[in-house]
Amino acid sequence: MSKALKEALKGDPFAYPNPLVGCVIVKKGKIIGKGYHGFFGGPHAEPSAVKNCSESAKGADFYITMEPCSSINKKTPPCTDLLLQIKPKKVFIGSLDPNPAHNGKGVEILRKAGIKTETGILSKECENINSSFFKNMKENMPYVILKFAQSLNGKIADNKGNSRWISCEESRFFSQKLRAGCDCIIAGAKTIIKDNPLLTVRYPKAVKQPSVCIIDGCGKIPLNASVFKADRKVFIVVKKGFSFKGKIPKNARILEIPLKGDFLNNKILLKKLYKEGIRRILVEGGGETHGQFVFSGLFDEIYAFISPIIIGQKNSPSSVVWPDNYKIKKGLGIELKLKEEKNIGKDKLLIFGK
Amino acid sequence: MSKALKEALKGDPFAYPNPLVGCVIVKKGKIIGKGYHGFFGGPHAEPSAVKNCSESAKGADFYITMEPCSSINKKTPPCTDLLLQIKPKKVFIGSLDPNPAHNGKGVEILRKAGIKTETGILSKECENINSSFFKNMKENMPYVILKFAQSLNGKIADNKGNSRWISCEESRFFSQKLRAGCDCIIAGAKTIIKDNPLLTVRYPKAVKQPSVCIIDGCGKIPLNASVFKADRKVFIVVKKGFSFKGKIPKNARILEIPLKGDFLNNKILLKKLYKEGIRRILVEGGGETHGQFVFSGLFDEIYAFISPIIIGQKNSPSSVVWPDNYKIKKGLGIELKLKEEKNIGKDKLLIFGK
Repeated sequence: MSKALKEALKGDPFAYPNPLVGCVIVKKGKIIGKGYHGFFGGPHAEPSAVKNCSESAKGADFYITMEPCSSINKKTPPCTDLLLQIKPKKVFIGSLDPNPAHNGKGVEILRKAGIKTETGILSKECENINSSFFKNMKENMPYVILKFAQSLNGKIADNKGNSRWISCEESRFFSQKLRAGCDCIIAGAKTIIKDNPLLTVRYPKAVKQPSVCIIDGCGKIPLNASVFKADRKVFIVVKKGFSFKGKIPKNARILEIPLKGDFLNNKILLKKLYKEGIRRILVEGGGETHGQFVFSGLFDEIYAFISPIIIGQKNSPSSVVWPDNYKIKKGLGIELKLKEEKNIGKDKLLIFGK
Repeated sequence: MSKALKEALKGDPFAYPNPLVGCVIVKKGKIIGKGYHGFFGGPHAEPSAVKNCSESAKGADFYITMEPCSSINKKTPPCTDLLLQIKPKKVFIGSLDPNPAHNGKGVEILRKAGIKTETGILSKECENINSSFFKNMKENMPYVILKFAQSLNGKIADNKGNSRWISCEESRFFSQKLRAGCDCIIAGAKTIIKDNPLLTVRYPKAVKQPSVCIIDGCGKIPLNASVFKADRKVFIVVKKGFSFKGKIPKNARILEIPLKGDFLNNKILLKKLYKEGIRRILVEGGGETHGQFVFSGLFDEIYAFISPIIIGQKNSPSSVVWPDNYKIKKGLGIELKLKEEKNIGKDKLLIFGK
């Protein structure tokens, strides 16, 4: 199963927002085939592994990190059909499918057909690689990743707003991979006005561009900004009742969101985005945008690239900021958990969860 | 020699500001004795190793991380005398003594007495563990370590000045070890006024208290502050010409330092402290104190404890700050080099050099 997990991870980033799934087929103690779910809409791990087999998979053991799908969807036939046809000796499964409509059904189908099926093999690890998909299925909410590159002392630009480049080339490439694994990028209006970024994915073999969602409560962004030029959807988020002046670009959609205090109610925003089909979001603020998501606990992971530089001017903006009158319930701030770390070029990447 | 290096490191923190030195004695391919310089003023590595020998060291090979001392000082007899008396088969030496008055003399004495002596064994590594001592000897300047505990986004307190405790207990213990290895702690007046810290070493087996040096350009600290209560010297640094009102505590010394721009000339301060016998300084600012040392390049290492917390209020103080009108010559800020990292409790310690 740990080898199947390794296979599954090969699906990062193009399988997202689908789950990462890996499959290893073993016959007489020898691996005869391996496969993974490689891209959104592409073949699942099981048919990939079968296709790669060096001999017939009939009577072999299957190690699959997630319960095989049992429903007909538009893109692929159910993997349970394939297994019934192959007749494995035994099927070992990592995590069950968290989708309430499918949970346990794949296992049931196999068992009813007389195929020995064991579940719960390295289930924690198999769930962990899909925390994003599990959240989607269990909470009907998108998975939210905050990403920023900062100086050691927490600054994302100098006092004049210069920020190119705080992080090293390797970190910027890694950020592109993060983008490629998301179906929406959230940015603040300030970022669009100041930097006029494209917010496109520049990562090898990336085919689709994630949507962009601009937090722009009072409609301040220029409607000819670069962000509208790529072929993808752009959500412009304004406060409820605000009416935009000027011609909205063809690929743009206005989302009206009620206020919560002085800021937009981001929980409602996330729910709306989920209904729009958004599953995995990368928030690339502005410190204030990050601050709103962190303070209200509306994040799942934080990717902080810490660059070996100190930007010291008093009015340099910090990576995460909220108003002085925001009160913390307990302790000094919002507590995180360090989950993972990487050395990327000369930068240190720290990945936090809640 | 790598085993002698391991021995040397056992001298951290109590050997400081003396060099860390280790010695391993080998006879017929077997280690018969090991030793290190364990505390300031205590026996050197060579006599310690000889004392620990399981059999006579006569005719054995000596691996010593630094050239043996050849001069009579107040505390210990010269180690070259000991070696001449023992008559080793061969002496292997890591780095030469960087003190210009002794450099190469120990080796010369051994060779003149007919003892085979080879130098330069792992010399880089042997120098690196003593970058502090090497700087002292070569530049006649103290070694300066900046230390701070910050939230992920670079804050050292919330907007009301609360900072207890950003870092975890294990990090605070580690900081005490850092203090125990320094002979002076620099703090800003603001820190003294706001927190009234003792700035003493609370580390097992620590016997001496480092001096304290308070940057207090305009003499604002209360002269009954806790910092004056421990048995050690306190330097109060004021701008040249400033005269202190009130009774100076007995253990306090006023150092007048000329201004450089709006701030004190810290280079002159460091030179004065060196003349006062200070060799290894821990700067525990205040973000502004750190900022002055970082901006002017007057530091050798930065120990940054990054705690898994976000402190977001806009007016929370950052770990390193300088005025907005300070211009950076090249790039966005002062560049550092990540030298080492540790996981300490739930915190991440990043150690930077220049």
